[in-house]
Amino acid sequence: MTVTLEFLARELDAELHGPADAEVSGLGTIGAAGPQQLTFLANSRYRAFLENTSAGAVLLSAEQREHCPVPALVVKDPYLAFAKASHFFDTAPPVSAGIHPSAVVDPSATVPESVSLGPNVVIDAGVELGEGTVVMANSVIGAGTRIGGQGRIWPNVTIYHGVTIGPRTTIHSHAVIGADGFGFAFNGAGWTKVAQVGGVRIGADVEIGAGTTIDRGAIEDTVIGNGVILDNQIQVAHNVVIGDHSALAGKVGIAGSSRIGSYCMIGGAVGISGHLEICDQVQILGMSLVSRSITEPGTYGSALPVDKQDRYRRNVARFRHLDELSRRVRRLEKARGGSSED
Amino acid sequence: MTVTLEFLARELDAELHGPADAEVSGLGTIGAAGPQQLTFLANSRYRAFLENTSAGAVLLSAEQREHCPVPALVVKDPYLAFAKASHFFDTAPPVSAGIHPSAVVDPSATVPESVSLGPNVVIDAGVELGEGTVVMANSVIGAGTRIGGQGRIWPNVTIYHGVTIGPRTTIHSHAVIGADGFGFAFNGAGWTKVAQVGGVRIGADVEIGAGTTIDRGAIEDTVIGNGVILDNQIQVAHNVVIGDHSALAGKVGIAGSSRIGSYCMIGGAVGISGHLEICDQVQILGMSLVSRSITEPGTYGSALPVDKQDRYRRNVARFRHLDELSRRVRRLEKARGGSSED
Amino acid sequence: MTVTLEFLARELDAELHGPADAEVSGLGTIGAAGPQQLTFLANSRYRAFLENTSAGAVLLSAEQREHCPVPALVVKDPYLAFAKASHFFDTAPPVSAGIHPSAVVDPSATVPESVSLGPNVVIDAGVELGEGTVVMANSVIGAGTRIGGQGRIWPNVTIYHGVTIGPRTTIHSHAVIGADGFGFAFNGAGWTKVAQVGGVRIGADVEIGAGTTIDRGAIEDTVIGNGVILDNQIQVAHNVVIGDHSALAGKVGIAGSSRIGSYCMIGGAVGISGHLEICDQVQILGMSLVSRSITEPGTYGSALPVDKQDRYRRNVARFRHLDELSRRVRRLEKARGGSSED
Repeated sequence: MTVTLEFLARELDAELHGPADAEVSGLGTIGAAGPQQLTFLANSRYRAFLENTSAGAVLLSAEQREHCPVPALVVKDPYLAFAKASHFFDTAPPVSAGIHPSAVVDPSATVPESVSLGPNVVIDAGVELGEGTVVMANSVIGAGTRIGGQGRIWPNVTIYHGVTIGPRTTIHSHAVIGADGFGFAFNGAGWTKVAQVGGVRIGADVEIGAGTTIDRGAIEDTVIGNGVILDNQIQVAHNVVIGDHSALAGKVGIAGSSRIGSYCMIGGAVGISGHLEICDQVQILGMSLVSRSITEPGTYGSALPVDKQDRYRRNVARFRHLDELSRRVRRLEKARGGSSED
Repeated sequence: MTVTLEFLARELDAELHGPADAEVSGLGTIGAAGPQQLTFLANSRYRAFLENTSAGAVLLSAEQREHCPVPALVVKDPYLAFAKASHFFDTAPPVSAGIHPSAVVDPSATVPESVSLGPNVVIDAGVELGEGTVVMANSVIGAGTRIGGQGRIWPNVTIYHGVTIGPRTTIHSHAVIGADGFGFAFNGAGWTKVAQVGGVRIGADVEIGAGTTIDRGAIEDTVIGNGVILDNQIQVAHNVVIGDHSALAGKVGIAGSSRIGSYCMIGGAVGISGHLEICDQVQILGMSLVSRSITEPGTYGSALPVDKQDRYRRNVARFRHLDELSRRVRRLEKARGGSSED
Repeated sequence: MTVTLEFLARELDAELHGPADAEVSGLGTIGAAGPQQLTFLANSRYRAFLENTSAGAVLLSAEQREHCPVPALVVKDPYLAFAKASHFFDTAPPVSAGIHPSAVVDPSATVPESVSLGPNVVIDAGVELGEGTVVMANSVIGAGTRIGGQGRIWPNVTIYHGVTIGPRTTIHSHAVIGADGFGFAFNGAGWTKVAQVGGVRIGADVEIGAGTTIDRGAIEDTVIGNGVILDNQIQVAHNVVIGDHSALAGKVGIAGSSRIGSYCMIGGAVGISGHLEICDQVQILGMSLVSRSITEPGTYGSALPVDKQDRYRRNVARFRHLDELSRRVRRLEKARGGSSED
């Protein structure tokens, strides 16, 4: 798609410094964008790139304008403006409404004419799809599941029975929504499965990454709030609740019945134990373990970063005796007649 | 499904305190169950909920009966009884025998009439399915694989060639059984693949979670024992052996050729290095690293839990010098002419 | 397949000690191989097995030959020779060229006659498949994606639009190539998605494990070099670059825009933060966190290994106070008028 700078200025509420009828037809990074491309400067560390750019136009803040040798679109938040602009240049192929002849649609399902069902899609009994829903090739929607309008389900997604999904929600390939939670009772000799009779409720404007799994509830529902963004390969166990607008990076795992607040940001591969509460506006650094509830907003971490192998091994060996080391320090302090800390 | 309390008492071997012909038609939590719902009390911490419940009936132990204001079903193990009862109220849609016209079944496959094959299921040459096996939409079963009777394979599962699966085993969506193990030899310039000619043997009554991957063996088979329960997104590398009735939580990873005993419980996101042995009845706490064999039953852990960012960063910085710190303490002790610990 | 030892000696450039016309028809481990099986000895720790083997033939180094009671094939690198030999005995079912009638192929796609498309495969507009490409059941290839010749895509793989894959590349089931990167701008109330307009470029001779996800780039491409081997359930975020011949074990996660060098070996479940550079020939031990760039080849680690629960808990409690402990030691040193380390 080709757009004029005037169009962009209007759509992005930007102040244009440059020719209104100049055009751009794609996106580039600040270091590599050419004359046909729009770029942005969000971090002043990259100003040297700005000074040398040959981009068609740059989204930037007012204080950077003097350094810009090409047409500038001045905005308050350049990255947010870029996010909005990016959709004009999306490369995802367009989708047209209609049901591919190979799709298998149960006659009891509700499928408006504006819906697009790709090849081999399977829509089970009683499913309700909202206007404009896109379900791409080889995805399967289980009985009684309801999906709000204008969402997109990429290929090879599986949604089990009895799931509710709000409008404008995107689900990437190989996500699994509504598989059984991991509920078993020990019977003395082995494990007796607990039927997972709850469902999954997902809000509006949610994004679910590739390979992410969200289990159905044991009795009540597992709940994902509005505007939640989930990256790839996240595991959400039964009866977890995630508050509105929280963002979870790839490979996070949340054990059963834990509740995450709103506007939380959970780093990659963080593990959250079961039956915890994490309040609103908590940030967790990548690879941390959360094994207790968190009641205070702020940033938390626990993972040790890498060191060279020899030093790593020596320190790990000492860690095994950290309790003894603390006691030895205490003894030295006592011998000195010193402080009473311990 | 609606059942009488008399029916439940008989099926669960429970002592009924209440009207035999009262009915329940679903499940509820102890905090929220209504008059049509069965609930349970397994943890005395929730007794306040019991005292205020309006459930149709409660599964509980004898000592809690006096606190129960509604019909009670007294059992030895309320959670186990609830697990058994839950299946009367399962919400999973019923499946009927038969082969969907869109399924692609190789003529050399063995498919009894009691089997259910969903839309777009692919059954390759020489596959043998036991009586009553359910293979749901878009799942693929590779050549020569044998699956015991009465199991269920949810949609979009992939099972490669040469896999053997026992009866009554459940496999959730997007699990992959029998992909190549990660076997490569370095050839001086790059990696030469080792053909993975072993298979996978899975026992009876196994549950395999969504997105879990179990690789085929390099030469001999990868083996999952009877009654093993695997949660979502677990990675089982080639030639791993997991003993009967072990339970693995989500995101566990087990590297090649390690052997896990029976009745082990492995917490979420635990990593187990290759070529280890873990004896029976070992519990590993979530996010731990097991890098040596474990020869003694018991509970083991290693992950650090989160702290506030500033304290976390200070402690991590000190960890880098823990070996030096230990040496400094030793020097202080020597200077004092003290103990010989180090 | 049955082959003579003479054939193996010639193909593997081995020195045969034994009858040229003796035959083997499969592979076995050094501890279990029978008279019809080829085995190998790569690690002298297993020499006792060699001395008692009844294998049909053993691949081994010159110095082990005297201990071998059966026909020997002497080579410089027994494991590499075994890797090459293993392909003669591969158990993967053969694939024949042709398009299954249930496959859905867009008329604008390029599909040579040598290609094999399994049941329910979906090939979108403008896709180009090289000679001999195998796409197995229920896999989906998005619009405009190009795949070099002689590769194999196992069942239930999803490749999005605009992906480029080199020749001889293998992709295992449930891998997802080209899903959207996790790019969002905070808009004050929630998250505005950044359209991910970059693609994915994957080199030649790459192996991608089951369930691995490789996201498309935000603006420029995500890049996987030639000869890279990726195990199962790896997450590669947008704009990551992985250098030639690097090997990543299962469950590794790499955050956005990080660059991994060539000939690196990344252990299982390692996490790599975003925007880092890791130079060539770096080894990272399993479950480590890499949160800074690494500029020097070598081996690095960070994860603590398990300990018994009681000791683990005591040491963890002390870790929370490690900074204070260090200060206390410093005070003791000062009181002693000692060293100036801190």
